Amino acid sequence: MGALHAGHLSLIRLAAQENDQVFVSIYVNPTQFGLNEDLDSYPKTWEKDITMLEELNGELKGRINTVFAPTTKTMYPTLPPDSSIPGTGSFLTITPLANLLEGKTRPVFFRGVATVCMKLFNICTPERVYFGQKDVQQTVIIKRMVKDFHLNTQVRVVGTEREEDGLAMSSRNVYLGSRRRKVGTLLYLALRAAEIAYTTGGKRTREEILAQAWELTKYISREQDLLSEHERVGFEVDYLSLADPETLEEVQSVDEGVGAVLSGAIKMLPLEGVRPTEELGLGGDKGAVRLIDNIILRPVER
Amino acid sequence: MGALHAGHLSLIRLAAQENDQVFVSIYVNPTQFGLNEDLDSYPKTWEKDITMLEELNGELKGRINTVFAPTTKTMYPTLPPDSSIPGTGSFLTITPLANLLEGKTRPVFFRGVATVCMKLFNICTPERVYFGQKDVQQTVIIKRMVKDFHLNTQVRVVGTEREEDGLAMSSRNVYLGSRRRKVGTLLYLALRAAEIAYTTGGKRTREEILAQAWELTKYISREQDLLSEHERVGFEVDYLSLADPETLEEVQSVDEGVGAVLSGAIKMLPLEGVRPTEELGLGGDKGAVRLIDNIILRPVER
Repeated sequence: MGALHAGHLSLIRLAAQENDQVFVSIYVNPTQFGLNEDLDSYPKTWEKDITMLEELNGELKGRINTVFAPTTKTMYPTLPPDSSIPGTGSFLTITPLANLLEGKTRPVFFRGVATVCMKLFNICTPERVYFGQKDVQQTVIIKRMVKDFHLNTQVRVVGTEREEDGLAMSSRNVYLGSRRRKVGTLLYLALRAAEIAYTTGGKRTREEILAQAWELTKYISREQDLLSEHERVGFEVDYLSLADPETLEEVQSVDEGVGAVLSGAIKMLPLEGVRPTEELGLGGDKGAVRLIDNIILRPVER
Repeated sequence: MGALHAGHLSLIRLAAQENDQVFVSIYVNPTQFGLNEDLDSYPKTWEKDITMLEELNGELKGRINTVFAPTTKTMYPTLPPDSSIPGTGSFLTITPLANLLEGKTRPVFFRGVATVCMKLFNICTPERVYFGQKDVQQTVIIKRMVKDFHLNTQVRVVGTEREEDGLAMSSRNVYLGSRRRKVGTLLYLALRAAEIAYTTGGKRTREEILAQAWELTKYISREQDLLSEHERVGFEVDYLSLADPETLEEVQSVDEGVGAVLSGAIKMLPLEGVRPTEELGLGGDKGAVRLIDNIILRPVER
């Protein structure tokens, strides 16, 4: 979807290691944005993206073969792209996977993702496709799609790139502004606390593992409440999840042979007490910024 | 779907003319049968199908390369096939096309067809795929799917094979029994009457064209009413349609540059006054038999 950052570049680097030719697609797909989501304001940084890709292509000795940036008429050749439900058009649905986690608040999102990926795969016929771990539900759905539709491609998932303080890289981070940016690491910290309960702490039940994450979010919330309105940051936890890696269904305890996906979403709320000089990020702090993150709890080796 | 007849063989013959290798798929796809449709009783004639294919393969000098008859676990590798709505699984939907005509009474039908065809195409990667004109809505939906999902295959539509009296060949004709079989031609006769109004009669409006078809069905209905219960056949016209060839939306008049699809569906009702010796066809006249047919009104050449 463009607005490239280090996370995207890490996908391309791995693709270049594992393949002779790399095909980069840049397309802000309208059918994965809900009718009241941020399609129009989604960051479009074409010039910067191309500069980054040219620089990377030098590093990769020309291994980037093609940048594919289609028009919407190419991707949706008959009917205009439709984000309504049920909507009209040619769509791919992967349920119940698409209705869980992110799908609960974004009901058209994975329909749009699966549909556009099927089209991209058919156009490019890639031997391998590269997706970031950060969008874990997307990786699970694409794997399911590849299996169920017998697509002849291998799905490679690349670890999440993070800022120095742990915030997962995301094209949407530019909306945060500096005040919310500092507190934005809280989701990662919460997931890490839960991960430690599993790895170091040896905890296996949902309650024991997720309690660590919830406590951390509550602690940070109380901390923020003590600050003045010019300093504090409000947030809401949308969900914290401990789920099966293939079905994404919530689990009551982690099967050591299977592992689990620890994931969450938070909303960083619009600021209070904004001073005229405050740096607000792209969009000027007009609305909440939703952040997602996840950590894979690996099966325990014996 | 097996239960091969001369219509299927004509698809294979044309495929063998136009290609070096022919791949025949035989799979009774559960997801295109509604929950109360005839999946369980659909004719399965594997031995006879293979004999017919072997014979045809002789005629075609071994051009039939493969008969692909997958298990349901191969075609639906993760979740069991689901025919409910919305249902769970990985599906392809092509709307509004799939909701018109046959889709009105069979709401899961084209979801199942598109889904299984996408899988079959991905497995076989055919240069050309062959479909019968008899299932005209299916051909329009497959063409739309190929276009919208950028599938690298050419959709070839082969004219409907008919019995000597004009009845379109169909695997479901075996359910008719001899009494209903004789009257079963009425749909074709009705469509022909409408076609003649367009071609010979120069009629262009929906009313003028379809009136011919409706009148013929009414005439045959009155004729049947005069017969005894041991002789007569009851039927209902499900629909008669005059539609755009690409969108399948009903048209008020035929654009000479575009042409139209003239189609219909009838239900041959269970018989009254059945005598013990009467030949009732496969299934013993247990329910109504739905028949479909169509004629393409070609654009007028200038």
